[in-house]
Amino acid sequence: MSSQPLISVFLLLLVGGSVLESSATLDPIIRLPTTSDGLSHGDDDGLYCASWHLAAETNNAGGWKQIPSRCQSYVKSYMTGKQFDSDCEIISNFSLAFASTVEMDPDGKDAWIFDVDETLLTNLPYYMDHGFGSEIFNESCWDGWVALAEAPAIPSSLNLYNALKQMGFKIFVLTGRSEHQRQDTSKNLELAGYTGWEGLILRGASDRGIPATVYKSERRSILVNGGYRIHGSSGDQWSDLLGFAVAKRSFKLPNPMYYIP
Amino acid sequence: MSSQPLISVFLLLLVGGSVLESSATLDPIIRLPTTSDGLSHGDDDGLYCASWHLAAETNNAGGWKQIPSRCQSYVKSYMTGKQFDSDCEIISNFSLAFASTVEMDPDGKDAWIFDVDETLLTNLPYYMDHGFGSEIFNESCWDGWVALAEAPAIPSSLNLYNALKQMGFKIFVLTGRSEHQRQDTSKNLELAGYTGWEGLILRGASDRGIPATVYKSERRSILVNGGYRIHGSSGDQWSDLLGFAVAKRSFKLPNPMYYIP
Repeated sequence: MSSQPLISVFLLLLVGGSVLESSATLDPIIRLPTTSDGLSHGDDDGLYCASWHLAAETNNAGGWKQIPSRCQSYVKSYMTGKQFDSDCEIISNFSLAFASTVEMDPDGKDAWIFDVDETLLTNLPYYMDHGFGSEIFNESCWDGWVALAEAPAIPSSLNLYNALKQMGFKIFVLTGRSEHQRQDTSKNLELAGYTGWEGLILRGASDRGIPATVYKSERRSILVNGGYRIHGSSGDQWSDLLGFAVAKRSFKLPNPMYYIP
Repeated sequence: MSSQPLISVFLLLLVGGSVLESSATLDPIIRLPTTSDGLSHGDDDGLYCASWHLAAETNNAGGWKQIPSRCQSYVKSYMTGKQFDSDCEIISNFSLAFASTVEMDPDGKDAWIFDVDETLLTNLPYYMDHGFGSEIFNESCWDGWVALAEAPAIPSSLNLYNALKQMGFKIFVLTGRSEHQRQDTSKNLELAGYTGWEGLILRGASDRGIPATVYKSERRSILVNGGYRIHGSSGDQWSDLLGFAVAKRSFKLPNPMYYIP
Protein backbone atom coordinates (compact mmCIF):
# COMPACT_ATOMS: atom_id res chain seq x y z
CA MET A 1 0.00 0.00 0.00
CA SER A 2 3.02 2.27 0.56
CA SER A 3 3.28 3.14 -3.13
CA GLN A 4 -0.37 4.17 -3.43
CA PRO A 5 0.25 7.93 -3.14
CA LEU A 6 2.72 7.66 -6.03
CA ILE A 7 0.15 6.18 -8.38
CA SER A 8 -3.00 7.94 -7.20
CA VAL A 9 -3.08 9.92 -10.45
CA PHE A 10 -3.09 6.70 -12.48
CA LEU A 11 -5.78 5.31 -10.24
CA LEU A 12 -7.96 8.32 -10.97
CA LEU A 13 -7.30 8.19 -14.71
CA LEU A 14 -7.74 4.47 -15.04
CA VAL A 15 -10.84 4.15 -12.91
CA GLY A 16 -12.20 7.05 -14.91
CA GLY A 17 -11.37 5.11 -18.05
CA SER A 18 -12.93 2.05 -16.54
CA VAL A 19 -16.14 3.95 -15.87
CA LEU A 20 -16.28 5.02 -19.51
CA GLU A 21 -15.56 1.52 -20.79
CA SER A 22 -18.18 0.04 -18.54
CA SER A 23 -20.76 2.07 -20.39
CA ALA A 24 -19.57 0.97 -23.83
CA THR A 25 -21.97 -1.34 -25.59
CA LEU A 26 -20.81 -4.63 -27.11
CA ASP A 27 -23.49 -6.85 -28.59
CA PRO A 28 -22.63 -10.48 -27.81
CA ILE A 29 -25.09 -11.69 -30.41
CA ILE A 30 -23.30 -9.90 -33.21
CA ARG A 31 -19.80 -10.43 -31.93
CA LEU A 32 -19.73 -14.01 -30.73
CA PRO A 33 -19.71 -15.61 -34.19
CA THR A 34 -16.82 -13.37 -35.26
CA THR A 35 -14.63 -14.61 -32.44
CA SER A 36 -15.47 -18.29 -31.97
CA ASP A 37 -16.27 -21.45 -33.87
CA GLY A 38 -19.13 -21.64 -31.39
CA LEU A 39 -19.15 -25.42 -31.76
CA SER A 40 -19.43 -26.17 -28.08
CA HIS A 41 -22.50 -23.93 -27.83
CA GLY A 42 -24.03 -24.24 -31.27
CA ASP A 43 -26.56 -26.95 -30.49
CA ASP A 44 -26.90 -26.64 -26.72
CA ASP A 45 -28.94 -23.64 -25.55
CA GLY A 46 -28.74 -24.71 -21.89
CA LEU A 47 -24.95 -24.78 -21.94
CA TYR A 48 -24.69 -21.56 -23.90
CA CYS A 49 -27.27 -19.64 -21.86
CA ALA A 50 -25.78 -20.69 -18.51
CA SER A 51 -22.40 -19.44 -19.78
CA TRP A 52 -23.92 -16.24 -21.12
CA HIS A 53 -25.66 -15.70 -17.76
CA LEU A 54 -22.44 -16.16 -15.78
CA ALA A 55 -20.64 -13.81 -18.20
CA ALA A 56 -23.38 -11.20 -17.67
CA GLU A 57 -23.33 -11.53 -13.86
CA THR A 58 -19.53 -11.23 -13.72
CA ASN A 59 -19.57 -8.16 -16.03
CA ASN A 60 -17.62 -10.08 -18.68
CA ALA A 61 -20.36 -9.56 -21.24
CA GLY A 62 -19.97 -5.78 -21.41
CA GLY A 63 -23.06 -3.87 -22.47
CA TRP A 64 -26.09 -5.58 -23.99
CA LYS A 65 -29.56 -4.37 -25.04
CA GLN A 66 -31.48 -7.65 -25.12
CA ILE A 67 -30.90 -11.13 -23.81
CA PRO A 68 -29.81 -13.58 -26.54
CA SER A 69 -33.07 -14.69 -28.21
CA ARG A 70 -32.14 -18.35 -27.71
CA CYS A 71 -31.99 -17.73 -23.93
CA GLN A 72 -35.55 -16.51 -23.29
CA SER A 73 -36.69 -19.86 -21.91
CA TYR A 74 -33.49 -20.15 -19.83
CA VAL A 75 -34.06 -16.71 -18.28
CA LYS A 76 -37.75 -17.48 -17.70
CA SER A 77 -36.87 -20.74 -15.92
CA TYR A 78 -34.17 -19.04 -13.86
CA MET A 79 -36.29 -16.08 -12.78
CA THR A 80 -39.45 -18.07 -12.01
CA GLY A 81 -37.73 -21.10 -10.47
CA LYS A 82 -35.96 -21.74 -7.17
CA GLN A 83 -32.46 -20.72 -8.28
CA PHE A 84 -33.08 -16.95 -8.41
CA ASP A 85 -34.50 -16.89 -4.87
CA SER A 86 -31.67 -19.11 -3.66
CA ASP A 87 -29.04 -16.89 -5.32
CA CYS A 88 -30.55 -13.74 -3.78
CA GLU A 89 -30.76 -15.39 -0.37
CA ILE A 90 -27.11 -16.43 -0.23
CA ILE A 91 -26.03 -12.92 -1.29
CA SER A 92 -28.19 -11.51 1.50
CA ASN A 93 -26.49 -13.96 3.88
CA PHE A 94 -23.00 -12.88 2.78
CA SER A 95 -24.03 -9.22 3.04
CA LEU A 96 -25.22 -9.69 6.61
CA ALA A 97 -22.13 -11.76 7.45
CA PHE A 98 -19.99 -8.79 6.36
CA ALA A 99 -22.24 -6.24 8.11
CA SER A 100 -21.85 -8.17 11.37
CA THR A 101 -18.07 -7.56 11.20
CA VAL A 102 -18.49 -3.76 11.01
CA GLU A 103 -17.65 -1.87 14.21
CA MET A 104 -20.54 0.56 14.40
CA ASP A 105 -19.69 4.11 15.47
CA PRO A 106 -22.08 6.00 17.76
CA ASP A 107 -21.84 9.00 15.39
CA GLY A 108 -24.58 7.39 13.26
CA LYS A 109 -22.60 7.69 10.04
CA ASP A 110 -22.35 3.98 9.20
CA ALA A 111 -24.22 3.65 5.91
CA TRP A 112 -25.48 1.01 3.49
CA ILE A 113 -26.77 1.74 -0.01
CA PHE A 114 -29.50 -0.15 -1.83
CA ASP A 115 -30.59 0.13 -5.44
CA VAL A 116 -34.36 -0.28 -6.05
CA ASP A 117 -35.24 -2.26 -9.20
CA GLU A 118 -34.19 -5.94 -9.05
CA THR A 119 -32.52 -5.16 -5.71
CA LEU A 120 -35.15 -4.13 -3.12
CA LEU A 121 -38.06 -4.70 -5.51
CA THR A 122 -38.56 -7.28 -8.24
CA ASN A 123 -40.22 -6.24 -11.49
CA LEU A 124 -40.72 -9.84 -12.55
CA PRO A 125 -44.49 -9.29 -13.06
CA TYR A 126 -43.61 -6.59 -15.61
CA TYR A 127 -40.90 -8.62 -17.36
CA MET A 128 -43.11 -11.69 -17.55
CA ASP A 129 -45.29 -9.58 -19.85
CA HIS A 130 -42.27 -8.33 -21.81
CA GLY A 131 -40.30 -11.43 -22.76
CA PHE A 132 -37.97 -11.57 -19.74
CA GLY A 133 -35.60 -9.05 -21.32
CA SER A 134 -35.93 -10.27 -24.91
CA GLU A 135 -37.82 -7.08 -25.85
CA ILE A 136 -36.09 -3.71 -26.26
CA PHE A 137 -36.77 -1.46 -23.24
CA ASN A 138 -39.95 0.61 -23.73
CA GLU A 139 -39.87 3.68 -21.48
CA SER A 140 -43.58 4.53 -21.62
CA CYS A 141 -44.59 0.93 -20.81
CA TRP A 142 -42.08 0.95 -17.97
CA ASP A 143 -43.30 4.28 -16.58
CA GLY A 144 -46.84 2.91 -16.57
CA TRP A 145 -45.68 -0.06 -14.50
CA VAL A 146 -43.76 2.17 -12.05
CA ALA A 147 -46.89 4.30 -11.58
CA LEU A 148 -48.80 1.21 -10.40
CA ALA A 149 -46.39 0.92 -7.42
CA GLU A 150 -47.06 -2.84 -7.37
CA ALA A 151 -43.56 -4.31 -7.57
CA PRO A 152 -43.11 -6.90 -4.81
CA ALA A 153 -40.13 -7.03 -2.44
CA ILE A 154 -37.37 -9.56 -2.98
CA PRO A 155 -37.88 -11.40 0.35
CA SER A 156 -34.19 -11.88 1.17
CA SER A 157 -33.54 -8.19 0.41
CA LEU A 158 -36.33 -7.16 2.78
CA ASN A 159 -34.81 -9.37 5.47
CA LEU A 160 -31.38 -7.82 4.89
CA TYR A 161 -32.79 -4.29 4.85
CA ASN A 162 -34.56 -4.78 8.18
CA ALA A 163 -31.58 -6.53 9.78
CA LEU A 164 -29.22 -3.70 8.76
CA LYS A 165 -31.66 -1.10 10.06
CA GLN A 166 -31.84 -3.02 13.35
CA MET A 167 -28.02 -3.00 13.54
CA GLY A 168 -28.03 0.79 13.24
CA PHE A 169 -26.94 1.26 9.64
CA LYS A 170 -28.26 4.39 7.95
CA ILE A 171 -29.87 3.20 4.76
CA PHE A 172 -29.75 5.20 1.55
CA VAL A 173 -31.87 4.12 -1.39
CA LEU A 174 -30.11 5.19 -4.58
CA THR A 175 -32.05 4.56 -7.78
CA GLY A 176 -31.81 5.41 -11.46
CA ARG A 177 -35.53 6.22 -11.42
CA SER A 178 -36.38 9.90 -12.08
CA GLU A 179 -37.24 12.51 -9.47
CA HIS A 180 -40.79 12.75 -10.91
CA GLN A 181 -41.26 9.11 -9.85
CA ARG A 182 -40.39 9.83 -6.19
CA GLN A 183 -43.95 9.50 -4.89
CA ASP A 184 -44.69 6.25 -6.78
CA THR A 185 -41.32 4.80 -5.78
CA SER A 186 -41.71 5.76 -2.13
CA LYS A 187 -45.27 4.35 -2.13
CA ASN A 188 -44.14 1.09 -3.76
CA LEU A 189 -41.25 0.65 -1.32
CA GLU A 190 -43.54 1.20 1.67
CA LEU A 191 -46.23 -1.14 0.32
CA ALA A 192 -43.50 -3.78 -0.15
CA GLY A 193 -42.46 -3.34 3.49
CA TYR A 194 -39.48 -0.98 3.27
CA THR A 195 -39.54 1.87 5.76
CA GLY A 196 -37.18 4.09 7.71
CA TRP A 197 -34.58 4.91 5.08
CA GLU A 198 -32.29 7.88 5.71
CA GLY A 199 -32.53 9.07 2.13
CA LEU A 200 -34.20 8.22 -1.17
CA ILE A 201 -32.05 9.52 -4.04
CA LEU A 202 -33.45 9.71 -7.58
CA ARG A 203 -32.13 11.14 -10.85
CA GLY A 204 -32.70 14.89 -11.11
CA ALA A 205 -33.00 16.89 -14.32
CA SER A 206 -29.24 17.58 -14.27
CA ASP A 207 -28.53 13.83 -14.20
CA ARG A 208 -30.20 13.17 -17.57
CA GLY A 209 -27.98 11.26 -19.96
CA ILE A 210 -25.24 10.64 -17.40
CA PRO A 211 -24.22 6.95 -17.20
CA ALA A 212 -25.55 5.29 -14.05
CA THR A 213 -22.00 4.49 -12.92
CA VAL A 214 -21.15 8.20 -12.85
CA TYR A 215 -24.50 9.40 -11.46
CA LYS A 216 -24.38 6.88 -8.60
CA SER A 217 -20.69 7.49 -7.90
CA GLU A 218 -21.34 11.23 -7.66
CA ARG A 219 -24.21 10.66 -5.24
CA ARG A 220 -22.07 8.31 -3.12
CA SER A 221 -19.27 10.87 -3.03
CA ILE A 222 -21.73 13.47 -1.70
CA LEU A 223 -22.57 11.05 1.14
CA VAL A 224 -18.86 10.53 1.83
CA ASN A 225 -18.36 14.32 1.85
CA GLY A 226 -21.15 14.38 4.43
CA GLY A 227 -19.11 12.12 6.70
CA TYR A 228 -20.88 8.83 5.95
CA ARG A 229 -18.86 5.60 5.86
CA ILE A 230 -20.36 3.51 3.06
CA HIS A 231 -19.72 -0.03 4.29
CA GLY A 232 -21.95 -1.91 1.88
CA SER A 233 -23.73 -1.38 -1.39
CA SER A 234 -26.31 -3.74 -2.89
CA GLY A 235 -27.33 -3.62 -6.53
CA ASP A 236 -28.23 -5.83 -9.49
CA GLN A 237 -26.13 -3.79 -11.95
CA TRP A 238 -22.37 -3.26 -11.91
CA SER A 239 -23.21 0.40 -12.61
CA ASP A 240 -24.76 0.42 -9.11
CA LEU A 241 -21.43 -0.62 -7.61
CA LEU A 242 -18.43 0.49 -9.71
CA GLY A 243 -16.85 3.89 -10.33
CA PHE A 244 -15.68 6.10 -7.47
CA ALA A 245 -16.64 6.55 -3.81
CA VAL A 246 -17.34 2.83 -3.86
CA ALA A 247 -18.51 0.91 -0.79
CA LYS A 248 -16.04 -1.18 1.21
CA ARG A 249 -17.95 -4.24 0.02
CA SER A 250 -20.27 -4.36 -2.94
CA PHE A 251 -22.90 -7.06 -3.42
CA LYS A 252 -24.12 -7.88 -6.93
CA LEU A 253 -27.60 -9.35 -7.10
CA PRO A 254 -28.43 -11.49 -10.13
CA ASN A 255 -30.27 -9.97 -13.08
CA PRO A 256 -30.14 -11.75 -16.44
CA MET A 257 -33.01 -9.62 -17.83
CA TYR A 258 -31.41 -6.26 -18.58
CA TYR A 259 -28.18 -4.26 -18.49
CA ILE A 260 -27.79 -0.60 -17.44
CA PRO A 261 -24.53 1.20 -18.33
CA MET B 1 -17.37 13.14 -14.85
CA SER B 2 -16.91 16.87 -14.19
CA SER B 3 -16.89 16.33 -10.44
CA GLN B 4 -14.15 13.69 -10.55
CA PRO B 5 -11.26 16.01 -9.60
CA LEU B 6 -13.26 17.08 -6.53
CA ILE B 7 -13.60 13.53 -5.27
CA SER B 8 -10.30 12.04 -6.36
CA VAL B 9 -9.17 11.86 -2.75
CA PHE B 10 -12.24 9.84 -1.82
CA LEU B 11 -11.66 7.62 -4.82
CA LEU B 12 -8.16 6.86 -3.61
CA LEU B 13 -9.25 6.27 -0.03
CA LEU B 14 -12.23 4.14 -0.89
CA VAL B 15 -10.56 2.01 -3.53
CA GLY B 16 -7.79 1.53 -0.99
CA GLY B 17 -10.45 0.48 1.51
CA SER B 18 -11.95 -1.79 -1.07
CA VAL B 19 -8.60 -3.45 -1.66
CA LEU B 20 -8.25 -4.11 2.05
CA GLU B 21 -11.81 -5.41 2.38
CA SER B 22 -11.35 -7.73 -0.57
CA SER B 23 -8.73 -9.58 1.44
CA ALA B 24 -10.94 -9.98 4.51
CA THR B 25 -11.96 -13.55 5.16
CA LEU B 26 -15.60 -14.48 5.80
CA ASP B 27 -16.42 -18.13 6.17
CA PRO B 28 -19.81 -18.78 4.52
CA ILE B 29 -20.15 -22.13 6.32
CA ILE B 30 -19.97 -20.52 9.74
CA ARG B 31 -21.92 -17.42 8.89
CA LEU B 32 -24.77 -18.66 6.75
CA PRO B 33 -26.75 -20.26 9.57
CA THR B 34 -26.42 -17.09 11.64
CA THR B 35 -28.06 -14.99 8.95
CA SER B 36 -30.67 -17.21 7.33
CA ASP B 37 -33.26 -19.81 8.11
CA GLY B 38 -31.48 -21.72 5.37
CA LEU B 39 -34.69 -23.56 4.52
CA SER B 40 -34.38 -23.05 0.79
CA HIS B 41 -30.87 -24.54 0.86
CA GLY B 42 -30.94 -26.91 3.79
CA ASP B 43 -31.74 -30.09 1.92
CA ASP B 44 -30.69 -29.20 -1.61
CA ASP B 45 -26.93 -29.22 -2.22
CA GLY B 46 -27.36 -28.56 -5.95
CA LEU B 47 -29.35 -25.39 -5.33
CA TYR B 48 -27.06 -24.23 -2.52
CA CYS B 49 -23.81 -24.98 -4.35
CA ALA B 50 -24.92 -23.28 -7.57
CA SER B 51 -25.79 -20.20 -5.47
CA TRP B 52 -22.51 -20.40 -3.57
CA HIS B 53 -20.63 -20.69 -6.89
CA LEU B 54 -22.35 -17.63 -8.38
CA ALA B 55 -21.64 -15.72 -5.15
CA ALA B 56 -17.96 -16.69 -5.36
CA GLU B 57 -17.66 -15.75 -9.06
CA THR B 58 -19.30 -12.35 -8.51
CA ASN B 59 -17.07 -11.63 -5.47
CA ASN B 60 -20.10 -11.59 -3.17
CA ALA B 61 -18.68 -14.38 -1.03
CA GLY B 62 -15.72 -12.36 0.25
CA GLY B 63 -12.69 -14.40 1.29
CA TRP B 64 -12.85 -18.16 1.75
CA LYS B 65 -10.22 -20.82 2.50
CA GLN B 66 -12.03 -23.95 1.39
CA ILE B 67 -15.07 -24.70 -0.72
CA PRO B 68 -18.14 -25.66 1.36
CA SER B 69 -17.68 -29.37 2.11
CA ARG B 70 -21.17 -30.13 0.77
CA CYS B 71 -20.12 -28.67 -2.61
CA GLN B 72 -17.18 -30.94 -3.44
CA SER B 73 -19.22 -33.06 -5.88
CA TYR B 74 -20.75 -29.91 -7.40
CA VAL B 75 -17.30 -28.41 -8.01
CA LYS B 76 -15.99 -31.71 -9.37
CA SER B 77 -18.90 -31.96 -11.82
CA TYR B 78 -18.51 -28.32 -12.86
CA MET B 79 -14.76 -28.48 -13.41
CA THR B 80 -14.72 -31.84 -15.19
CA GLY B 81 -17.90 -31.36 -17.22
CA LYS B 82 -18.81 -29.24 -20.25
CA GLN B 83 -19.90 -26.11 -18.35
CA PHE B 84 -16.42 -24.96 -17.31
CA ASP B 85 -15.07 -25.14 -20.87
CA SER B 86 -18.20 -23.43 -22.16
CA ASP B 87 -17.94 -20.65 -19.55
CA CYS B 88 -14.26 -20.07 -20.39
CA GLU B 89 -14.99 -20.05 -24.11
CA ILE B 90 -17.71 -17.41 -23.94
CA ILE B 91 -15.46 -15.19 -21.78
CA SER B 92 -12.72 -15.59 -24.38
CA ASN B 93 -15.28 -14.59 -27.03
CA PHE B 94 -16.31 -11.46 -25.13
CA SER B 95 -12.64 -10.61 -24.54
CA LEU B 96 -11.87 -10.83 -28.24
CA ALA B 97 -15.05 -8.91 -29.09
CA PHE B 98 -13.79 -6.06 -26.89
CA ALA B 99 -10.22 -6.33 -28.24
CA SER B 100 -11.53 -5.97 -31.78
CA THR B 101 -12.94 -2.53 -30.85
CA VAL B 102 -9.53 -1.22 -29.69
CA GLU B 103 -7.85 1.23 -32.05
CA MET B 104 -4.30 -0.06 -32.04
CA ASP B 105 -1.55 2.57 -31.97
CA PRO B 106 1.64 2.03 -33.99
CA ASP B 107 3.66 2.95 -30.88
CA GLY B 108 3.36 -0.70 -29.77
CA LYS B 109 2.09 0.22 -26.30
CA ASP B 110 -1.31 -1.47 -26.49
CA ALA B 111 -1.17 -4.13 -23.77
CA TRP B 112 -3.17 -7.07 -22.39
CA ILE B 113 -2.45 -8.79 -19.08
CA PHE B 114 -2.96 -12.46 -18.33
CA ASP B 115 -2.74 -14.26 -15.01
CA VAL B 116 -1.27 -17.79 -15.16
CA ASP B 117 -3.00 -20.30 -12.85
CA GLU B 118 -6.61 -21.06 -13.82
CA THR B 119 -6.29 -18.37 -16.52
CA LEU B 120 -3.67 -19.40 -19.10
CA LEU B 121 -3.07 -22.78 -17.48
CA THR B 122 -5.41 -25.14 -15.67
CA ASN B 123 -4.22 -26.97 -12.58
CA LEU B 124 -7.18 -29.33 -12.64
CA PRO B 125 -4.89 -32.41 -12.61
CA TYR B 126 -3.45 -31.14 -9.30
CA TYR B 127 -6.82 -30.25 -7.76
CA MET B 128 -8.34 -33.58 -8.79
CA ASP B 129 -5.81 -35.10 -6.37
CA HIS B 130 -6.60 -32.49 -3.69
CA GLY B 131 -10.37 -32.51 -3.32
CA PHE B 132 -11.19 -29.77 -5.84
CA GLY B 133 -10.52 -27.05 -3.27
CA SER B 134 -11.95 -28.87 -0.26
CA GLU B 135 -8.44 -29.28 1.21
CA ILE B 136 -6.52 -26.40 2.81
CA PHE B 137 -3.78 -25.12 0.47
CA ASN B 138 -0.50 -27.01 0.97
CA GLU B 139 2.41 -24.92 -0.31
CA SER B 140 5.00 -27.71 -0.55
CA CYS B 141 2.60 -29.99 -2.48
CA TRP B 142 1.78 -27.07 -4.74
CA ASP B 143 5.45 -26.20 -5.35
CA GLY B 144 6.08 -29.83 -6.31
CA TRP B 145 3.30 -29.62 -8.89
CA VAL B 146 4.61 -26.31 -10.30
CA ALA B 147 8.09 -27.86 -10.67
CA LEU B 148 6.61 -30.54 -12.94
CA ALA B 149 5.61 -27.83 -15.46
CA GLU B 150 2.78 -30.08 -16.64
CA ALA B 151 -0.27 -27.82 -16.29
CA PRO B 152 -2.25 -27.86 -19.56
CA ALA B 153 -3.49 -24.76 -21.36
CA ILE B 154 -7.13 -23.71 -21.10
CA PRO B 155 -7.91 -24.07 -24.84
CA SER B 156 -10.05 -20.93 -25.15
CA SER B 157 -7.37 -18.92 -23.31
CA LEU B 158 -4.70 -20.16 -25.72
CA ASN B 159 -6.93 -19.13 -28.64
CA LEU B 160 -7.44 -15.69 -27.11
CA TYR B 161 -3.74 -15.27 -26.33
CA ASN B 162 -2.73 -16.09 -29.90
CA ALA B 163 -5.46 -13.91 -31.42
CA LEU B 164 -4.43 -10.90 -29.29
CA LYS B 165 -0.77 -11.44 -30.22
CA GLN B 166 -1.79 -11.56 -33.89
CA MET B 167 -3.67 -8.26 -33.44
CA GLY B 168 -0.50 -6.64 -32.11
CA PHE B 169 -1.24 -6.47 -28.39
CA LYS B 170 1.83 -6.64 -26.15
CA ILE B 171 1.12 -9.44 -23.71
CA PHE B 172 2.25 -9.30 -20.10
CA VAL B 173 1.93 -12.41 -17.96
CA LEU B 174 1.44 -11.31 -14.34
CA THR B 175 1.38 -14.13 -11.81
CA GLY B 176 1.40 -14.57 -8.04
CA ARG B 177 3.98 -17.32 -8.45
CA SER B 178 7.40 -16.55 -6.98
CA GLU B 179 10.48 -15.38 -8.86
CA HIS B 180 12.23 -18.67 -8.01
CA GLN B 181 9.57 -20.42 -10.08
CA ARG B 182 10.33 -18.36 -13.21
CA GLN B 183 12.06 -21.15 -15.10
CA ASP B 184 9.39 -23.78 -14.32
CA THR B 185 6.61 -21.31 -15.13
CA SER B 186 8.19 -20.21 -18.39
CA LYS B 187 8.80 -23.85 -19.36
CA ASN B 188 5.21 -24.83 -18.53
CA LEU B 189 3.75 -21.91 -20.49
CA GLU B 190 5.86 -22.78 -23.54
CA LEU B 191 5.03 -26.50 -23.34
CA ALA B 192 1.34 -25.50 -23.18
CA GLY B 193 1.74 -23.42 -26.34
CA TYR B 194 2.21 -19.88 -24.99
CA THR B 195 5.05 -17.95 -26.61
CA GLY B 196 6.06 -14.39 -27.46
CA TRP B 197 5.02 -12.54 -24.31
CA GLU B 198 6.46 -9.08 -23.72
CA GLY B 199 7.02 -9.74 -20.04
CA LEU B 200 6.62 -12.46 -17.41
CA ILE B 201 6.19 -10.84 -14.00
CA LEU B 202 6.49 -12.92 -10.81
CA ARG B 203 6.50 -12.04 -7.09
CA GLY B 204 9.92 -10.90 -5.91
CA ALA B 205 11.25 -11.14 -2.36
CA SER B 206 9.94 -7.62 -1.61
CA ASP B 207 6.40 -8.71 -2.59
CA ARG B 208 6.15 -11.37 0.14
CA GLY B 209 3.04 -11.01 2.25
CA ILE B 210 1.53 -8.26 0.10
CA PRO B 211 -2.07 -9.03 -0.93
CA ALA B 212 -2.31 -10.04 -4.60
CA THR B 213 -4.60 -7.09 -5.31
CA VAL B 214 -1.88 -4.66 -4.22
CA TYR B 215 1.06 -6.57 -5.76
CA LYS B 216 -0.68 -6.82 -9.14
CA SER B 217 -1.93 -3.22 -9.04
CA GLU B 218 1.61 -1.99 -8.34
CA ARG B 219 2.96 -4.02 -11.27
CA ARG B 220 0.25 -2.69 -13.56
CA SER B 221 1.01 0.88 -12.49
CA ILE B 222 4.67 0.35 -13.44
CA LEU B 223 3.50 -0.67 -16.93
CA VAL B 224 1.29 2.41 -17.12
CA ASN B 225 4.25 4.55 -16.03
CA GLY B 226 6.12 2.94 -18.92
CA GLY B 227 3.53 4.26 -21.33
CA TYR B 228 1.53 1.07 -21.83
CA ARG B 229 -2.23 1.27 -22.30
CA ILE B 230 -3.71 -1.72 -20.47
CA HIS B 231 -6.82 -2.44 -22.51
CA GLY B 232 -7.68 -5.84 -21.10
CA SER B 233 -6.85 -8.01 -18.14
CA SER B 234 -7.79 -11.68 -17.78
CA GLY B 235 -7.75 -13.50 -14.46
CA ASP B 236 -9.64 -16.10 -12.43
CA GLN B 237 -9.36 -14.08 -9.19
CA TRP B 238 -10.82 -10.65 -8.45
CA SER B 239 -7.42 -9.87 -6.93
CA ASP B 240 -6.04 -10.20 -10.50
CA LEU B 241 -8.37 -7.44 -11.67
CA LEU B 242 -9.29 -4.99 -8.89
CA GLY B 243 -7.32 -2.28 -7.08
CA PHE B 244 -5.59 0.51 -8.99
CA ALA B 245 -4.12 0.91 -12.49
CA VAL B 246 -6.92 -1.39 -13.60
CA ALA B 247 -7.46 -2.38 -17.23
CA LYS B 248 -10.16 -0.68 -19.30
CA ARG B 249 -11.97 -4.03 -19.34
CA SER B 250 -11.37 -6.87 -16.92
CA PHE B 251 -12.41 -10.45 -17.64
CA LYS B 252 -13.06 -12.83 -14.74
CA LEU B 253 -12.56 -16.49 -15.57
CA PRO B 254 -14.44 -19.01 -13.41
CA ASN B 255 -12.68 -20.68 -10.49
CA PRO B 256 -14.79 -22.32 -7.77
CA MET B 257 -11.75 -24.16 -6.31
CA TYR B 258 -9.84 -21.49 -4.43
CA TYR B 259 -9.77 -17.82 -3.44
CA ILE B 260 -6.71 -15.54 -3.36
CA PRO B 261 -6.99 -12.20 -1.50
